[in-house]
Amino acid sequence: MNFDLELSCQVLARTPPTLDALLDGLPDLWTRGVEGPDTFSPFDVVGHLIDGEETDWIPRARIILVRGPNPVFEPYDRFRHRVRNAGRTLPSLLEEFARLRGENLALLRSWDLTPADLELPGTHPSLGRVTLRQLLASWVVHDLGHLAQVARVMAKQLRQEVGPWEPFLPVLTDHETPRS
Amino acid sequence: MNFDLELSCQVLARTPPTLDALLDGLPDLWTRGVEGPDTFSPFDVVGHLIDGEETDWIPRARIILVRGPNPVFEPYDRFRHRVRNAGRTLPSLLEEFARLRGENLALLRSWDLTPADLELPGTHPSLGRVTLRQLLASWVVHDLGHLAQVARVMAKQLRQEVGPWEPFLPVLTDHETPRS
Repeated sequence: MNFDLELSCQVLARTPPTLDALLDGLPDLWTRGVEGPDTFSPFDVVGHLIDGEETDWIPRARIILVRGPNPVFEPYDRFRHRVRNAGRTLPSLLEEFARLRGENLALLRSWDLTPADLELPGTHPSLGRVTLRQLLASWVVHDLGHLAQVARVMAKQLRQEVGPWEPFLPVLTDHETPRS
Repeated sequence: MNFDLELSCQVLARTPPTLDALLDGLPDLWTRGVEGPDTFSPFDVVGHLIDGEETDWIPRARIILVRGPNPVFEPYDRFRHRVRNAGRTLPSLLEEFARLRGENLALLRSWDLTPADLELPGTHPSLGRVTLRQLLASWVVHDLGHLAQVARVMAKQLRQEVGPWEPFLPVLTDHETPRS
């Protein structure tokens, strides 16, 4: 599939309701479990996606669109959510994520980006030169990767309970070594 | 987490609305893509989950609960959906899956299973002796594994578009060799 702004927005708009359908109202046993040390629980993933709305995707798109002489992105803090969301509930994070995503998509659509805009460059602090098109495609992939992670981490909470079925359920042994 | 019937039903009940939120109304470019030869698209996954409702989890639970002398499960056909759903639309499959899952969960709850019931045995055609508890735990894990698969397969449709971000997006390189 080639990148297409409208096709991408369709998926970006679905992430909050998908996470609501999967997680909102579930007990902590499902939403606070992890798959190993220093990995994200479903609760952590929602916090990380909020961080992305506030500090990553749209802020970086703005840096590109300003067309300044030195469009370098701020480094992204993958653990900002840990302090930010101490004491928060998952329903309140899901609501906040949906609101932020809605605002960011409205802003993105309001820019009415042209094909030429999508080729504008920015500088990633470790990856170097990237384009707005690559940034927006990565936003979509990042959402879907974390949705897959939420489902995988939930599945692993029952790993000890499936008995002989384990080899038929590859999700239980995906990412034995953390990959993100 | 130890297996708990109510906690499991909570997740099983969420799979249809989660897939609706993610997929219902998306164009075929998102829902018919695969991650390699002989792998499942999101459309195929919904068909496979329907097959599970009709031929796998509840039919096998029934075989166990009958307590006959030889509780051997029928082999499961992972590709039954390919012929069954030729010409179907994804919205109609999502609707059918939600209806079947709702009926099966109502039936499961109506059985009012005791801890002793959960230890009753069945015989899997290739895995050998299993318990009802392991069967039901595997049902939940199977759902979550296929939800992760749907998100992963969608993400991979944009693999060529993320440029230098690929190493930061591990979902793009998960399951390079099919694992299920």
